Amino acid sequence: MNETATEGEGRGGRRARGGGGAARRAERSAPRLEAARYIARNIPNFEILTSEAIEIIEHNAETVLQEIGVNFVDNPEALQRWRDAGATVTGERVRIPRGLARQLCATAPSQYTQVARNPERNVVIGGKNLILAPVYGPPFVRDYEHGRRYATMADFEKFVKLTYMSKWLHHSGGTVCEPTDVAVNKRHLDMLYAHMRYSDKPFMGSVTEKSRAVDSVKMAEILFGRDFVAENAVMTSLVNINSPLTFDSIMMNALEVYAEANQACIVSPFIVGGAMAPVSVAGTLTQVLAEVLAGVAYSQLVRQGAPVIFGAFVTSIDMNSGAPTFGTPEASKILWGAGQLARRMNLPFRSGGALCGSKLPDAQSAYETSNTLNAMLLGGVNFCLHAAGWLEGGLVASFEKFVLDADQLGVLHSIAEGIDISENAQAMDAIREVGPGGHYLGCAHTQANFKNAFWRTQVLDYKPFEQWSDEGGRDSYRLAHLRVERLMSEYVAPDLDPGIDEALKDYVATRKASEPDAFA
Amino acid sequence: MNETATEGEGRGGRRARGGGGAARRAERSAPRLEAARYIARNIPNFEILTSEAIEIIEHNAETVLQEIGVNFVDNPEALQRWRDAGATVTGERVRIPRGLARQLCATAPSQYTQVARNPERNVVIGGKNLILAPVYGPPFVRDYEHGRRYATMADFEKFVKLTYMSKWLHHSGGTVCEPTDVAVNKRHLDMLYAHMRYSDKPFMGSVTEKSRAVDSVKMAEILFGRDFVAENAVMTSLVNINSPLTFDSIMMNALEVYAEANQACIVSPFIVGGAMAPVSVAGTLTQVLAEVLAGVAYSQLVRQGAPVIFGAFVTSIDMNSGAPTFGTPEASKILWGAGQLARRMNLPFRSGGALCGSKLPDAQSAYETSNTLNAMLLGGVNFCLHAAGWLEGGLVASFEKFVLDADQLGVLHSIAEGIDISENAQAMDAIREVGPGGHYLGCAHTQANFKNAFWRTQVLDYKPFEQWSDEGGRDSYRLAHLRVERLMSEYVAPDLDPGIDEALKDYVATRKASEPDAFA
Repeated sequence: MNETATEGEGRGGRRARGGGGAARRAERSAPRLEAARYIARNIPNFEILTSEAIEIIEHNAETVLQEIGVNFVDNPEALQRWRDAGATVTGERVRIPRGLARQLCATAPSQYTQVARNPERNVVIGGKNLILAPVYGPPFVRDYEHGRRYATMADFEKFVKLTYMSKWLHHSGGTVCEPTDVAVNKRHLDMLYAHMRYSDKPFMGSVTEKSRAVDSVKMAEILFGRDFVAENAVMTSLVNINSPLTFDSIMMNALEVYAEANQACIVSPFIVGGAMAPVSVAGTLTQVLAEVLAGVAYSQLVRQGAPVIFGAFVTSIDMNSGAPTFGTPEASKILWGAGQLARRMNLPFRSGGALCGSKLPDAQSAYETSNTLNAMLLGGVNFCLHAAGWLEGGLVASFEKFVLDADQLGVLHSIAEGIDISENAQAMDAIREVGPGGHYLGCAHTQANFKNAFWRTQVLDYKPFEQWSDEGGRDSYRLAHLRVERLMSEYVAPDLDPGIDEALKDYVATRKASEPDAFA
Repeated sequence: MNETATEGEGRGGRRARGGGGAARRAERSAPRLEAARYIARNIPNFEILTSEAIEIIEHNAETVLQEIGVNFVDNPEALQRWRDAGATVTGERVRIPRGLARQLCATAPSQYTQVARNPERNVVIGGKNLILAPVYGPPFVRDYEHGRRYATMADFEKFVKLTYMSKWLHHSGGTVCEPTDVAVNKRHLDMLYAHMRYSDKPFMGSVTEKSRAVDSVKMAEILFGRDFVAENAVMTSLVNINSPLTFDSIMMNALEVYAEANQACIVSPFIVGGAMAPVSVAGTLTQVLAEVLAGVAYSQLVRQGAPVIFGAFVTSIDMNSGAPTFGTPEASKILWGAGQLARRMNLPFRSGGALCGSKLPDAQSAYETSNTLNAMLLGGVNFCLHAAGWLEGGLVASFEKFVLDADQLGVLHSIAEGIDISENAQAMDAIREVGPGGHYLGCAHTQANFKNAFWRTQVLDYKPFEQWSDEGGRDSYRLAHLRVERLMSEYVAPDLDPGIDEALKDYVATRKASEPDAFA
């Protein structure tokens, strides 16, 4: 297993700065916290597009950019940048000559390191690596006891803590749910503080307004130091494209802030196939590529070398109800195809997640989720948002679904290791020792290897039927609820320098006091 | 979609023979029954083993056969066949000189057609094809209303009927559950009759005793005609190897009967990793290959050219409880590796299924199932037993899980089609028509293509939350139960020549009368 295990840190202790006997005692009493290193795949990518198909799609995407173009809305500065770069600008429409966008994209790095405040949690995004981050965006939460309700800041903090404690999640994410009990213009401050205080994993910045992106950078400067942030990517933020072919000023302003600060963005078409893109896979891939080419090129016009990820969030649609659907074959095919297109651009790739349409963490949610997670792993995704906790088409963040999904992410880690072909793994001595008709449970090879031979679940049930039945015949939803409760009871916050903590709190308080609450 | 749609056939009508007005009216009133053609993959296989790793495993497997050997138990005739072929036989141990087994396997066909009584249901097993068959073997059934109980012949017939009605299952399977209310020595007769009478899809023969394999061939001769059976594979039957490295006489006798009758067998190690094989993936693959080499070679010693499938049923083990586990990373890796080894032998490959350890059709069951089904599709499996209905480690056949799994098999069909890159699928006119900021729902391309653009579920829920909630907030288990009830209410048996039906019934009655009931 590709993992690093670290001690849980003492409650309010000062471990990193030395500390006294009390801090050391606190360390010893804290539960051991295991955190896996990000996935470095030792398996091939699944490539569904032929090279001929790739060439057709790439050609068509350039045709889209040149003939149809893209809109940069309410953003004269962006239009000027495009004009200067050689595009044809008519009103807000930007037509990009064949080849120009791809050429501009070439200055974006093929991989970058996002630094965490705990350096053991740094992630290298790109290459054959895979970084897993929790659900992003739901206005509702669901839990086993209280059902579905609007999310609050307390729920948000709970997801940050669960993510921090989850061995297989490498990244704390961003808007793990919308804290609807905090003003729209202030909640980003509380969210950023929660990621910085209750976790030591890397996190995302706010994108919902230019000033909020600026706040994100400033708070990161408090946490990491100003010079450090200027030289290191300490945030990866989500910039959605308003598909089809539209770049709105809110998202572009956030992109501009981050790119100028040398911080990373995911440039991601957000597509419900059949509504925001053609009903065909090839047509959707063409549009995705055109949009990403334009968006990534723009990031490089803002600042050459700014780190950026090729994103593709694509679902299909139920043509009867208009509902977005997840875990579908069309979504898997688009994910695989988009991965190939991203690798042709030498860009890190974002797609997939524990996506589902189900209202409950039931069989439907798991079929849909598992279809997507498996496609995601084999499709070469480098950054996977929504890897745990997503429910009901992203309207709901579910605590129980979170721990079920997080457990499955362990499966992906193990698959990604590939097949060990060492002499020990060949196990010829074991086969000789046991022979025809024997069994392997007690043989020397099994004794030496069984501890790490198999992935182990933290939540699924393997008990004999009778025992399971005597214990109440609990389904996964119920078992997951028990795990959520146990994890929360064991949570211990990672250490944070009290001076930094105070400075972050001051910043949040000052910014909150500077403007009235807004709820829209 | 790769499918053929046929009319449901009239109740007791004589459609195939002409029939009168009444038969035609019955046809018109029968529900339309859609049956997909078997999957012909238009996507690459996922290959996890490097060629170096394959060579090591192949070399080691030959070492196992030559140095350790395999046991053929209680089977002097088999030992003689091996002696004649050049193996070294000591007691029941057969040591096979390096290269001999693989050389003997070369006469097995790389693919074969299993004929169904409805020729539209014929399946070609091998190449890039995938044939999906239902669960096999559970002594228990579970349904939503009555929970878990011993399976009966009525349950068996219900699964045969559900499989017949399931668009995405190509094969009726064999022991879809154990009808425990029928004597052990007679139930195979009722099972075979049910497959022949209540379905027109291809099916499997009995393997639990030599005489039962003989009965299977004789009943098939009644159904298809004696000469026809001599020249065509009309059954594919499951011959498990008693891993490690042991071939028991019951299974080998069945193999001998079928091979002599030119009927197909799956030669399949049955392995709980860590118990019947080493805890390592590479070691397990070595043993699997050695076992299949010996088993397939033996089938060719019985009759050169007899159709046979490279099987690999492999699960991992929970080292705490000893329970077999499903949907694990180790199982996926073994499946992928075994597929590569099978293709190197030019043999059809059997593995995978809707495998899970869960007691209920809940999230656990679906995660585990979907992990396995996805690995199975990409791993190049040609024959997938247990593709629907498997629950609780194969102890239970679940009606609700069956329809949930069967629905997911539709996802696999669509993925296997690959990406259409035709001019229509490129959809450039649609992108031009809609342009930046528009939407695709009403555009000409969508109107022309939406009907077949997306896979559609028959059982999952896509309703808005409020409607779903008003309707009782039903989970997948409950929704699946409703689908089972609807399917059963719509079932109409396929037409069968009354003379053949009578002859089959006579055979069953005569055989049953010829010996007393045995329940062990």
